[in-house]
Amino acid sequence: MHSTIEQVICRIKPADLEAIKRAEQRLDILTKPPGSLGRLEELAIQLAGISGTEQPAYGKRTVVVMAADHGVCSEGVSAFPQEVTVQMAYNFLSGGAAVNVLARQAGAEVRLVDIGIAGDLSHPELLARKVRYGSGNMAKGSAMSREEALQAILAGVSVAEEAVKGGTEIFITGEMGIGNTTASAAVLCALEGVPAETAVGRGTGIDDERLRHKIAVVERALKLNVPDSADAIDVLSKVGGLEIAGLAGLILGAAAARVPVVLDGFISGAAALVAKALAPLSHDYMIASHISGEQGHKLMLERLGLTALLDLELRLGEGTGGVLCLHFVEAASRIMREMATFESAGVSGADSR
Amino acid sequence: MHSTIEQVICRIKPADLEAIKRAEQRLDILTKPPGSLGRLEELAIQLAGISGTEQPAYGKRTVVVMAADHGVCSEGVSAFPQEVTVQMAYNFLSGGAAVNVLARQAGAEVRLVDIGIAGDLSHPELLARKVRYGSGNMAKGSAMSREEALQAILAGVSVAEEAVKGGTEIFITGEMGIGNTTASAAVLCALEGVPAETAVGRGTGIDDERLRHKIAVVERALKLNVPDSADAIDVLSKVGGLEIAGLAGLILGAAAARVPVVLDGFISGAAALVAKALAPLSHDYMIASHISGEQGHKLMLERLGLTALLDLELRLGEGTGGVLCLHFVEAASRIMREMATFESAGVSGADSR
Repeated sequence: MHSTIEQVICRIKPADLEAIKRAEQRLDILTKPPGSLGRLEELAIQLAGISGTEQPAYGKRTVVVMAADHGVCSEGVSAFPQEVTVQMAYNFLSGGAAVNVLARQAGAEVRLVDIGIAGDLSHPELLARKVRYGSGNMAKGSAMSREEALQAILAGVSVAEEAVKGGTEIFITGEMGIGNTTASAAVLCALEGVPAETAVGRGTGIDDERLRHKIAVVERALKLNVPDSADAIDVLSKVGGLEIAGLAGLILGAAAARVPVVLDGFISGAAALVAKALAPLSHDYMIASHISGEQGHKLMLERLGLTALLDLELRLGEGTGGVLCLHFVEAASRIMREMATFESAGVSGADSR
Repeated sequence: MHSTIEQVICRIKPADLEAIKRAEQRLDILTKPPGSLGRLEELAIQLAGISGTEQPAYGKRTVVVMAADHGVCSEGVSAFPQEVTVQMAYNFLSGGAAVNVLARQAGAEVRLVDIGIAGDLSHPELLARKVRYGSGNMAKGSAMSREEALQAILAGVSVAEEAVKGGTEIFITGEMGIGNTTASAAVLCALEGVPAETAVGRGTGIDDERLRHKIAVVERALKLNVPDSADAIDVLSKVGGLEIAGLAGLILGAAAARVPVVLDGFISGAAALVAKALAPLSHDYMIASHISGEQGHKLMLERLGLTALLDLELRLGEGTGGVLCLHFVEAASRIMREMATFESAGVSGADSR
């Protein structure tokens, strides 16, 4: 394994158990029946473990949208043509995509990373980290070389490190790449031994016939490439995608910096599976924002050991579900910082019965 | 029926079908696969129907917290003593309760209404609309007279009307009242023919023994009072509560003014059942924010014909779930106002296959 990735992994420490304990104690003295804020309380406890304080605050929030193309598109697995990746990249850069709208609402900045778009883009706001011009067609060979997969992961790590240096206190994973639900399903199959028909979904909205075809394409790619389930880099390089690799690196970089990372949907989940395989402790830093409409996401979250906060039947990606979940992160942190205690408000507690 | 309530009911008009159609059309030209924003798109469509525009904006947001006491508390149905209602009322007024914290985050104001607290309160911010000092003990007689129930509903209507006059563009229902899950369960039983053991839950967190007792108390109240399921005012007066009546009035007043009303949890749901029984069209103006941890709420939402947006296992009330849902209302309205279209962004649509 590339030594720099190993160094990042070594820096990832488990959650702070003392801060978790303090958070649990604080939640029980706030003016509400114990546990009555449900999942918000669980989130507050997790955030304490990540941040090392029971009263965290999250200033700068950064949605990292990793964009890349997929050679497997030439197999006809998507309802949209491949050029949409570039077109949507400019839409992100000009602030018109759904994730831009929702990020503005949540006080988050959107950073677009070209990690492997199959075309040349130019824009002052673009983070140019292109590893190659789109992945290869996994149905006919490897998606990329092992070296390229490592390079994409490290690009993600460096995006995380630079953002943290620039003040980012929480990350949201986002992505754009026509064909990337195919690659994400293949990663789920390869890493977790899941059959293609369970992992593959309708992506942007394909019909039954194309869904059967997409399943067959994933099966062919797995049979041809024989990815090693015990080697996440091998899986990434053979049937993954550049944005999946980049997001895996982002998650590792965030965890190493003790910064929470809110996962969006299916593609982000594939990246999280890779990150967790490389560094099991990175799991402690992941917040599952929502369960998407994409088939396979539920199973993916189970394998990640995460429970999503939202179920809004979203299947857009981009980071949209992740950004919506920021409101809950903010709610959980404000509860810890702003609510009165039984003592300060002069409110009687529950009786002893 | 009181003539003024009838007048309010007559003013409630169905959703604007033309605006709904325009919203559906707009959603399909925005830069995203059709339907990929899931429940947010449904919400955007509902908001268009309510507001009469496919690009609504919600400026002033008002959480109306109706507070009242319940004579049935003397039966020992709650984990908290009755004086907590007054204590928490002051906590709301000084901004330390959970709903205050979450409302500040969501840019909403909290208005506390004393509709029936069993004590005298004084505070410049309090809306004093006391109908009586707490309801009677439904296990020994009526919770209130029919006249008092009507008066409490009309108080809620007038709170809505005054707030709309003051600029409120969206309401969130909230409540405080030790014992009010007991009254809400009884209303669910009486209006919908649901058995007490299905409707009654643990409220602020009672143990198995007290839960059995609470079920028996509701059964006794129903048997003693024989509320008429076809007469929602009769149900309210015999086994309801003053905050439930007030919130029912608030919902009617909001619907009459074509202002959306975000419902919080179990007690708000009981008020919504009453509002819907009095004015079926009021249903179009209701947004179910969350499904609470309180047993019976799922069934209540089914009977209301509403699907909640959130499931965070909240069981606090106050309006907390409703205020959290405001972020999704804002998201839905911003999507309609701020997202680029395929044409404006120069993005290709799905292929014809």
